[in-house]
Amino acid sequence: MQKNITLSMGNGGEENNELITNIFYKYFKNDILSKSEDAAVLKVEQNIAYSTDSFTVSPLFFNGADIGKLAVCGTCNDLAMMGAKPKYLTVGVIIEEGFSTRDLEKIVRSMKKELETNEVIIVSGDTKVMPKGTIDKIIINTSGIGEIQYEGISSNNITSEDLILVSRDIGAHGATIFCAREGIELESELKSDCASLYPIVQELINSGVKITALRDATRGGVSAVLNEWAKQSNICIEVDEDKIPVSQEVQGICEMLGFEATALANEGTFCLAIPEDNANKALDILKKFNDNAVILAKVTNSHNKKVILNSSYGTQRFLDTPSGELLPRIC
Amino acid sequence: MQKNITLSMGNGGEENNELITNIFYKYFKNDILSKSEDAAVLKVEQNIAYSTDSFTVSPLFFNGADIGKLAVCGTCNDLAMMGAKPKYLTVGVIIEEGFSTRDLEKIVRSMKKELETNEVIIVSGDTKVMPKGTIDKIIINTSGIGEIQYEGISSNNITSEDLILVSRDIGAHGATIFCAREGIELESELKSDCASLYPIVQELINSGVKITALRDATRGGVSAVLNEWAKQSNICIEVDEDKIPVSQEVQGICEMLGFEATALANEGTFCLAIPEDNANKALDILKKFNDNAVILAKVTNSHNKKVILNSSYGTQRFLDTPSGELLPRIC
Repeated sequence: MQKNITLSMGNGGEENNELITNIFYKYFKNDILSKSEDAAVLKVEQNIAYSTDSFTVSPLFFNGADIGKLAVCGTCNDLAMMGAKPKYLTVGVIIEEGFSTRDLEKIVRSMKKELETNEVIIVSGDTKVMPKGTIDKIIINTSGIGEIQYEGISSNNITSEDLILVSRDIGAHGATIFCAREGIELESELKSDCASLYPIVQELINSGVKITALRDATRGGVSAVLNEWAKQSNICIEVDEDKIPVSQEVQGICEMLGFEATALANEGTFCLAIPEDNANKALDILKKFNDNAVILAKVTNSHNKKVILNSSYGTQRFLDTPSGELLPRIC
Repeated sequence: MQKNITLSMGNGGEENNELITNIFYKYFKNDILSKSEDAAVLKVEQNIAYSTDSFTVSPLFFNGADIGKLAVCGTCNDLAMMGAKPKYLTVGVIIEEGFSTRDLEKIVRSMKKELETNEVIIVSGDTKVMPKGTIDKIIINTSGIGEIQYEGISSNNITSEDLILVSRDIGAHGATIFCAREGIELESELKSDCASLYPIVQELINSGVKITALRDATRGGVSAVLNEWAKQSNICIEVDEDKIPVSQEVQGICEMLGFEATALANEGTFCLAIPEDNANKALDILKKFNDNAVILAKVTNSHNKKVILNSSYGTQRFLDTPSGELLPRIC
């Protein structure tokens, strides 16, 4: 292979075939992909979840993950949040002419590793190369199909009988990307939370915990999720401000940025709405994966469609859906 | 809505919700999409085809179609080529900051129209905005699920009992994009062949025609398809050069470009491998849609894995898989 990606590698001809064979098939090979022509043929025998996401993160490599891992986790997590076991992915890669073939291979290798974690395979793909200067390095789109293991998960059904949990300390991905982009060196261990969530969801399902809703807190962070839930279920979500799990490192970045940790993106952190009598059981399972999991909020009807932050001093304020630019190209 | 797309419209917060509601939901609305959270939940009861494609075409608008129509046709056609009726699509849109909201709406409107032609719905989507200068205008990724209506279509099974047909005159898309990009004004009616192919496939299936293989001749054109088929089925495909249907306009562009029409991209033109005794019946159906459909080639074993062009003078030459840059951003 050449050291850099050329336009001819996206032409549908010989060089395109070489790129696909030498990089993508090398890592993604499986029986279905090998037989896939214009489309893969799949046998599906139950209800499925189906989702897509595009990944434009900058920089491509950062502490804790890279765009490849992110592209697999992101779509697999969307499926997991509907109670579905990820099964099949498609991948569309758009590369800038001149991009390093070695970096491409590094990204693809990282995707492969995360595919294995999810026990998922890539069954169809597409590669495009754009002329230098018309796209910044590389963009990856994934779509995915999962088999639903737990029916009826919906953010329209949350009631005052549910408690809201969060699976770990929040904001690590957003803070990490910010530091990587601004060249801030921290002595600490700050790294993206980017991770596949289906293993946790599977354990929740296997344990018999009742689940009302799940949502990974990506762009817009925990505040976007809670506000969406409050609107969709016509409820008020009251968060104990003191309970919000934020690491010292993330807190430090937030102060620098003037952001709230609740608005920072996560890529392996999710919110759960769980019936009150199942909440502690769910929390125990979450804590097996990350000790910072907490019961974060209760559901009331005091201000429907709103999220309230209750401080330890007894004061209250609304936590709104984030707005403004936040961090572009966070995922 | 603002006149131009802003970074904040891709932030996962308020402005992002507005963009989705005012543009995407406005045109794509359906019951499944409305209920879709992180992923859509679908009931699928038969074998499915599953595919993805990214669209980077430049210019965005050209004679006969635009990137929106292309993005729907492209993935639906991939499904149709596996004998599947397109059912569900996902769409990932990546937009450059500053892009015209009106142009975005025009593209989305064009997608909607083509969704209707295919009787397909969008069930999940994703929108990203990238800072000005980091992506050229807009890129669209679609993935799709189709229900297989005709089992066993495969380009590994072509034999000397098949004839090879092509559904219309070739190269119109490639020639149109070239003209649009170079500012060549033609007095003629040259326009992209971009079109949804499932209606033709459905009629073939309904009529009881036996189908060995189907493939739309996109990047790399008819020569890429025939060469792939020759390799996959370990056969020799012998094309009657005189029979290759090329319009006068496309022929003119080819002479200008120094290209062969067989290497030019198509977006609504497909090759068929049909058992000899069914070929005329298939041709009659193709001709209902386009009078330029022809039986193009026969399958022999004279030079396996190769495509041969037979001229009317009795000379022979190989038609190879295209290589080199061809036209970047053709689709």
